[in-house]
Amino acid sequence: MPESCVFCQIVAGTAPATVVREWDDALAFIPLDPVVDGHILVIPKRHVADVAEDPAVSAITMRAAAELAEPPCNIITSAGREATQSVFHLHLHIVPRRANDGLALPWYSGRGRKGAHHA
Amino acid sequence: MPESCVFCQIVAGTAPATVVREWDDALAFIPLDPVVDGHILVIPKRHVADVAEDPAVSAITMRAAAELAEPPCNIITSAGREATQSVFHLHLHIVPRRANDGLALPWYSGRGRKGAHHA
Repeated sequence: MPESCVFCQIVAGTAPATVVREWDDALAFIPLDPVVDGHILVIPKRHVADVAEDPAVSAITMRAAAELAEPPCNIITSAGREATQSVFHLHLHIVPRRANDGLALPWYSGRGRKGAHHA
Repeated sequence: MPESCVFCQIVAGTAPATVVREWDDALAFIPLDPVVDGHILVIPKRHVADVAEDPAVSAITMRAAAELAEPPCNIITSAGREATQSVFHLHLHIVPRRANDGLALPWYSGRGRKGAHHA
Protein backbone atom coordinates (compact mmCIF):
# COMPACT_ATOMS: atom_id res chain seq x y z
CA MET A 1 0.00 0.00 0.00
CA PRO A 2 1.89 3.04 -1.27
CA GLU A 3 1.31 5.94 1.14
CA SER A 4 0.91 8.27 -1.81
CA CYS A 5 -1.92 6.27 -3.42
CA VAL A 6 -5.21 8.15 -2.99
CA PHE A 7 -7.25 4.98 -3.50
CA CYS A 8 -5.30 3.20 -0.76
CA GLN A 9 -6.04 6.23 1.41
CA ILE A 10 -9.76 5.86 0.65
CA VAL A 11 -9.55 2.16 1.61
CA ALA A 12 -7.76 3.13 4.83
CA GLY A 13 -10.31 5.86 5.57
CA THR A 14 -7.71 8.63 5.55
CA ALA A 15 -9.04 10.24 2.36
CA PRO A 16 -12.73 11.05 1.96
CA ALA A 17 -15.01 9.29 -0.52
CA THR A 18 -18.70 8.62 -0.94
CA VAL A 19 -18.72 4.85 -0.52
CA VAL A 20 -21.49 3.00 -2.35
CA ARG A 21 -20.71 -0.53 -1.19
CA GLU A 22 -17.97 -2.40 0.59
CA TRP A 23 -16.89 -6.02 0.26
CA ASP A 24 -14.17 -7.84 2.21
CA ASP A 25 -11.75 -7.30 -0.64
CA ALA A 26 -13.21 -4.45 -2.70
CA LEU A 27 -14.77 -1.01 -2.39
CA ALA A 28 -17.16 0.98 -4.59
CA PHE A 29 -17.35 4.76 -4.42
CA ILE A 30 -18.36 7.78 -6.47
CA PRO A 31 -15.54 9.40 -8.46
CA LEU A 32 -14.70 13.05 -7.85
CA ASP A 33 -15.59 13.86 -11.43
CA PRO A 34 -18.39 11.53 -12.61
CA VAL A 35 -19.07 11.55 -16.35
CA VAL A 36 -22.77 10.77 -15.77
CA ASP A 37 -25.00 10.33 -12.75
CA GLY A 38 -24.46 6.87 -11.34
CA HIS A 39 -20.80 6.64 -12.44
CA ILE A 40 -19.09 4.41 -9.87
CA LEU A 41 -15.53 3.20 -9.35
CA VAL A 42 -14.84 -0.28 -8.01
CA ILE A 43 -11.38 -0.97 -6.62
CA PRO A 44 -9.63 -3.84 -4.88
CA LYS A 45 -8.58 -3.09 -1.33
CA ARG A 46 -5.20 -4.56 -2.13
CA HIS A 47 -2.99 -2.21 -4.11
CA VAL A 48 -2.28 -3.33 -7.65
CA ALA A 49 -1.38 -0.83 -10.34
CA ASP A 50 -3.69 -2.03 -13.09
CA VAL A 51 -5.78 -4.87 -14.47
CA ALA A 52 -2.75 -6.75 -15.84
CA GLU A 53 -0.72 -6.83 -12.63
CA ASP A 54 -2.56 -9.61 -10.83
CA PRO A 55 -5.35 -11.44 -12.68
CA ALA A 56 -6.78 -12.88 -9.44
CA VAL A 57 -7.20 -9.40 -7.98
CA SER A 58 -8.74 -8.22 -11.25
CA ALA A 59 -11.22 -11.11 -11.07
CA ILE A 60 -12.21 -10.22 -7.50
CA THR A 61 -12.73 -6.62 -8.52
CA MET A 62 -14.84 -7.59 -11.53
CA ARG A 63 -16.98 -9.86 -9.39
CA ALA A 64 -17.76 -6.91 -7.13
CA ALA A 65 -18.45 -4.60 -10.08
CA ALA A 66 -20.72 -7.19 -11.68
CA GLU A 67 -22.72 -7.45 -8.45
CA LEU A 68 -23.28 -3.70 -8.53
CA ALA A 69 -23.76 -3.15 -12.27
CA GLU A 70 -27.25 -2.65 -13.66
CA PRO A 71 -27.60 -2.71 -17.45
CA PRO A 72 -27.55 -0.69 -19.54
CA CYS A 73 -24.01 0.20 -18.57
CA ASN A 74 -20.39 -0.10 -19.60
CA ILE A 75 -17.64 -1.42 -17.36
CA ILE A 76 -14.30 0.02 -18.35
CA THR A 77 -10.77 -0.09 -17.02
CA SER A 78 -7.68 1.71 -18.25
CA ALA A 79 -4.18 0.28 -17.93
CA GLY A 80 -1.36 2.68 -18.67
CA ARG A 81 -1.17 6.40 -19.22
CA GLU A 82 -1.76 6.04 -22.97
CA ALA A 83 -5.01 4.27 -22.12
CA THR A 84 -6.15 7.28 -19.98
CA GLN A 85 -5.19 5.75 -16.61
CA SER A 86 -4.36 8.53 -14.17
CA VAL A 87 -4.60 6.83 -10.76
CA PHE A 88 -2.33 3.81 -10.65
CA HIS A 89 -4.47 1.63 -8.42
CA LEU A 90 -6.73 -0.72 -10.40
CA HIS A 91 -10.25 0.63 -10.79
CA LEU A 92 -13.22 -0.44 -12.85
CA HIS A 93 -15.60 2.27 -14.01
CA ILE A 94 -19.29 1.44 -14.04
CA VAL A 95 -20.85 3.93 -16.44
CA PRO A 96 -24.66 3.86 -16.70
CA ARG A 97 -25.90 4.34 -20.26
CA ARG A 98 -29.06 5.49 -21.95
CA ALA A 99 -30.00 5.88 -25.62
CA ASN A 100 -28.36 8.86 -27.34
CA ASP A 101 -26.43 9.92 -24.25
CA GLY A 102 -23.48 11.01 -26.38
CA LEU A 103 -20.91 8.96 -24.45
CA ALA A 104 -18.09 7.65 -26.62
CA LEU A 105 -16.45 4.25 -26.92
CA PRO A 106 -13.56 3.17 -29.15
CA TRP A 107 -15.93 1.75 -31.79
CA TYR A 108 -17.01 5.28 -32.63
CA SER A 109 -13.54 6.60 -33.37
CA GLY A 110 -10.32 5.81 -35.18
CA ARG A 111 -10.85 2.77 -37.38
CA GLY A 112 -14.01 1.88 -35.47
CA ARG A 113 -17.32 2.11 -37.27
CA LYS A 114 -20.80 2.71 -35.96
CA GLY A 115 -22.59 -0.58 -35.99
CA ALA A 116 -19.37 -2.57 -35.73
CA HIS A 117 -19.81 -6.27 -35.06
CA HIS A 118 -19.41 -7.65 -31.59
CA ALA A 119 -19.59 -4.31 -29.82
CA MET B 1 -26.31 -22.48 -24.89
CA PRO B 2 -28.73 -20.78 -27.25
CA GLU B 3 -28.34 -22.31 -30.72
CA SER B 4 -28.64 -18.86 -32.23
CA CYS B 5 -25.73 -17.37 -30.24
CA VAL B 6 -22.75 -16.84 -32.53
CA PHE B 7 -20.33 -16.81 -29.59
CA CYS B 8 -21.67 -20.15 -28.35
CA GLN B 9 -21.14 -21.41 -31.90
CA ILE B 10 -17.53 -20.22 -31.77
CA VAL B 11 -17.07 -22.04 -28.45
CA ALA B 12 -18.61 -25.18 -29.99
CA GLY B 13 -16.41 -24.86 -33.07
CA THR B 14 -19.38 -24.58 -35.43
CA ALA B 15 -18.68 -20.93 -36.33
CA PRO B 16 -15.21 -19.81 -37.43
CA ALA B 17 -12.99 -17.52 -35.37
CA THR B 18 -9.32 -16.71 -35.04
CA VAL B 19 -8.70 -18.01 -31.53
CA VAL B 20 -5.90 -16.28 -29.61
CA ARG B 21 -6.03 -18.35 -26.42
CA GLU B 22 -8.23 -20.91 -24.78
CA TRP B 23 -8.80 -21.63 -21.10
CA ASP B 24 -10.97 -24.31 -19.51
CA ASP B 25 -13.76 -21.81 -19.04
CA ALA B 26 -12.98 -18.95 -21.43
CA LEU B 27 -11.93 -18.20 -24.98
CA ALA B 28 -10.12 -15.25 -26.60
CA PHE B 29 -10.48 -14.48 -30.29
CA ILE B 30 -10.16 -11.66 -32.80
CA PRO B 31 -13.40 -9.78 -33.53
CA LEU B 32 -14.69 -9.63 -37.10
CA ASP B 33 -14.34 -5.87 -37.05
CA PRO B 34 -11.39 -4.87 -34.83
CA VAL B 35 -11.15 -1.18 -33.98
CA VAL B 36 -7.34 -1.37 -33.80
CA ASP B 37 -4.73 -4.04 -34.40
CA GLY B 38 -4.60 -6.28 -31.38
CA HIS B 39 -8.28 -5.84 -30.46
CA ILE B 40 -9.34 -9.09 -28.77
CA LEU B 41 -12.59 -10.39 -27.34
CA VAL B 42 -12.60 -12.62 -24.26
CA ILE B 43 -15.75 -14.62 -23.55
CA PRO B 44 -16.84 -17.23 -21.03
CA LYS B 45 -17.58 -20.61 -22.55
CA ARG B 46 -20.77 -20.69 -20.55
CA HIS B 47 -23.51 -18.57 -22.04
CA VAL B 48 -24.47 -15.54 -19.98
CA ALA B 49 -26.02 -12.49 -21.60
CA ASP B 50 -23.90 -9.81 -20.00
CA VAL B 51 -21.58 -8.83 -17.15
CA ALA B 52 -24.44 -8.42 -14.66
CA GLU B 53 -26.05 -11.82 -15.16
CA ASP B 54 -23.61 -13.94 -13.18
CA PRO B 55 -20.82 -12.18 -11.25
CA ALA B 56 -18.83 -15.42 -10.86
CA VAL B 57 -18.77 -15.93 -14.63
CA SER B 58 -17.81 -12.29 -15.10
CA ALA B 59 -14.93 -12.78 -12.66
CA ILE B 60 -13.68 -15.85 -14.55
CA THR B 61 -13.81 -13.92 -17.79
CA MET B 62 -11.94 -10.97 -16.34
CA ARG B 63 -9.27 -13.26 -14.95
CA ALA B 64 -8.67 -14.61 -18.45
CA ALA B 65 -8.66 -11.12 -19.99
CA ALA B 66 -6.23 -9.87 -17.36
CA GLU B 67 -3.86 -12.72 -18.16
CA LEU B 68 -3.88 -11.67 -21.79
CA ALA B 69 -3.91 -7.88 -21.43
CA GLU B 70 -0.72 -5.93 -21.96
CA PRO B 71 -0.78 -2.26 -20.97
CA PRO B 72 -1.39 0.23 -22.38
CA CYS B 73 -4.89 -1.01 -23.05
CA ASN B 74 -8.51 -0.63 -22.10
CA ILE B 75 -10.76 -3.49 -21.10
CA ILE B 76 -14.39 -2.69 -21.83
CA THR B 77 -17.68 -4.51 -21.67
CA SER B 78 -21.11 -3.36 -22.74
CA ALA B 79 -24.30 -4.52 -21.04
CA GLY B 80 -27.49 -3.67 -22.84
CA ARG B 81 -28.31 -2.29 -26.25
CA GLU B 82 -28.11 1.33 -25.01
CA ALA B 83 -24.55 0.57 -23.90
CA THR B 84 -23.63 -0.61 -27.46
CA GLN B 85 -23.96 -4.35 -26.75
CA SER B 86 -24.92 -6.16 -29.95
CA VAL B 87 -24.03 -9.79 -29.21
CA PHE B 88 -25.80 -10.95 -26.08
CA HIS B 89 -23.13 -13.30 -24.80
CA LEU B 90 -20.80 -11.63 -22.29
CA HIS B 91 -17.58 -10.40 -23.89
CA LEU B 92 -14.73 -8.23 -22.67
CA HIS B 93 -12.94 -6.14 -25.27
CA ILE B 94 -9.18 -5.76 -24.88
CA VAL B 95 -8.28 -2.63 -26.83
CA PRO B 96 -4.56 -1.84 -27.13
CA ARG B 97 -3.82 1.87 -26.84
CA ARG B 98 -1.07 4.24 -27.87
CA ALA B 99 -0.61 7.96 -27.40
CA ASN B 100 -2.86 10.08 -29.63
CA ASP B 101 -4.59 7.10 -31.23
CA GLY B 102 -7.87 8.97 -31.37
CA LEU B 103 -9.87 6.25 -29.62
CA ALA B 104 -12.70 7.59 -27.52
CA LEU B 105 -13.83 6.85 -23.98
CA PRO B 106 -16.75 8.31 -22.05
CA TRP B 107 -14.54 10.85 -20.27
CA TYR B 108 -14.08 12.64 -23.57
CA SER B 109 -17.76 13.16 -24.29
CA GLY B 110 -21.02 14.22 -22.73
CA ARG B 111 -20.31 15.67 -19.29
CA GLY B 112 -16.85 14.12 -19.28
CA ARG B 113 -13.85 16.38 -19.41
CA LYS B 114 -10.36 15.79 -20.71
CA GLY B 115 -8.13 15.28 -17.74
CA ALA B 116 -10.99 14.12 -15.53
CA HIS B 117 -9.93 12.72 -12.19
CA HIS B 118 -9.70 9.00 -11.67
CA ALA B 119 -9.86 8.07 -15.34
